[in-house]
Amino acid sequence: MAGFEAKRIAVIGAGAVGSYYGARLAQAGHDVHFLMRRDYDAVRNGGLHVESVDGDFVLDSPSIARSSKEIGPVDWVICALKATSIEDARALVAPCVGDGTRILVLMNGLGLEERFAGWFGAERTFGGLAFTCINRREPGVVHHIDYGAVNIGHQIDERSELEAAAALWEGVQVETTTSPSLLLSRWEKLCWNVPFNGLAVTSGGITTDRILADSELREAARGVILEVVAAGNADLAAHDEPGRIDGAEMAERMIAATDAMADYRPSTMIDFMEGRPMEVEAIFGEPLRRAQALGVATPLMAVLSGQMRALNPA
Amino acid sequence: MAGFEAKRIAVIGAGAVGSYYGARLAQAGHDVHFLMRRDYDAVRNGGLHVESVDGDFVLDSPSIARSSKEIGPVDWVICALKATSIEDARALVAPCVGDGTRILVLMNGLGLEERFAGWFGAERTFGGLAFTCINRREPGVVHHIDYGAVNIGHQIDERSELEAAAALWEGVQVETTTSPSLLLSRWEKLCWNVPFNGLAVTSGGITTDRILADSELREAARGVILEVVAAGNADLAAHDEPGRIDGAEMAERMIAATDAMADYRPSTMIDFMEGRPMEVEAIFGEPLRRAQALGVATPLMAVLSGQMRALNPA
Repeated sequence: MAGFEAKRIAVIGAGAVGSYYGARLAQAGHDVHFLMRRDYDAVRNGGLHVESVDGDFVLDSPSIARSSKEIGPVDWVICALKATSIEDARALVAPCVGDGTRILVLMNGLGLEERFAGWFGAERTFGGLAFTCINRREPGVVHHIDYGAVNIGHQIDERSELEAAAALWEGVQVETTTSPSLLLSRWEKLCWNVPFNGLAVTSGGITTDRILADSELREAARGVILEVVAAGNADLAAHDEPGRIDGAEMAERMIAATDAMADYRPSTMIDFMEGRPMEVEAIFGEPLRRAQALGVATPLMAVLSGQMRALNPA
Repeated sequence: MAGFEAKRIAVIGAGAVGSYYGARLAQAGHDVHFLMRRDYDAVRNGGLHVESVDGDFVLDSPSIARSSKEIGPVDWVICALKATSIEDARALVAPCVGDGTRILVLMNGLGLEERFAGWFGAERTFGGLAFTCINRREPGVVHHIDYGAVNIGHQIDERSELEAAAALWEGVQVETTTSPSLLLSRWEKLCWNVPFNGLAVTSGGITTDRILADSELREAARGVILEVVAAGNADLAAHDEPGRIDGAEMAERMIAATDAMADYRPSTMIDFMEGRPMEVEAIFGEPLRRAQALGVATPLMAVLSGQMRALNPA
């Protein structure tokens, strides 16, 4: 395609999300290097398989590495670690960062880009919000079940940087949009993640349809959304961001969208059921801390946060 | 002892609580008949053993029956079924009710005496609130760990009836008090049961010290207590009961008392951990329904109620 420019890319955190989006970038012709641990041998021997609703494909011999140093500096780092590994991120990403490197933080939750900005500079830091349903199966196989769009924002909301980010994904089979306000986008996503991940886990690991079929839990979801919106709007104001969220509209839209998802299993609920660490701090702890610091009343977010912390495997 | 009058008593629901208090009544000389299912053979063969902090004792050959009809009419029915068995209570109790029979509903939660009053008449219906820690062990053995006081109220708060109830327990090794307002006593007990049973279960089955050590959960406990108090006061007003609960005082007192309990396992949390049905409707559902009917805002009670219903084994 006209104007395609292959970029050198490092995927740090090649779980389901990192492997999928990295494979899509490689499929389009980018020079993608995957940092792999668990799946290294399987991918080396059998390639990286993507089973997708949009058509299966295989990378027969992708470039894989056991350490970031083997990869070295790149044009773009895609950091798709779980938020629970945020303390490891700096050391894993640093060897891939050179002068012109940009970093896309493709992770869940609030406050992660701030960490990267502190380590590597805000100018080169982007946030990616994946709206998708992707699971890992056996080693070397990623299962892309539905959706897949990525919304990208820039840590300091520079329009020219957003254009550079969008350019990376041109010709890549991933629907991407850019956000003029990364902070607004993060809070908007929390409007779904906090109520539905939280209530699904604290109700024993139930699917979203069961949340919405129970009158108390449905009403609780609405109440949590309104609290997240209030906290988000206060945080946006505190950061002099112009955008605001309309609470009533957001609550209605999130609940309607979730009604349409049927028996969906939120990612944190899957972690919970499989005994894995949950992204409690990024999805619950940090939003709550900001709300409390700003004096926003968030009793439902607080109880969910406390319950989630207690339920998180030690 | 002077003035002791042996009463004919049926204990319906001879789990830990029923067996313990029935054994205490028998120990004092009352003519106690236990309806037993699970423990029938063990007690028939080996007696009913009470291992108590206040001294062990055994009833060598207590009167036990497999059906209420075998027992027939009595002076007092002590109904100590779990609240989850409320729909069975009428049929189990009815054969023991004659003209002068009184019924002590020694169960957890709100609205149970109303059911008995509807079935058998309000005049003969009493509520008992046990403040105790009693477990069943192997069949035929009850383990009384701590406390043991019973607070007794009358469904229509008649003073002469309260005197009759108090007389039953004279000479019995159980500390009893009477309440001038059964409804007030029920709501006061809910001020502990709703927050601490609820948060212990929805946080994955944690002890009360872990609730209070987490700043969010401790604050949530306080918030739940304030909601229960608001609901209770509205319910008391709606029933033209004179008493009211002081929310701030109650919250402080319940939290201080619980701080002193160390790693206590609330009864509903034990049920949850052992996979048994939990008393969700009596402790969470009915108080919430009353709050909602009275227009009292109870978002925390609602989320706990929804979570508990979802967590309850089907």
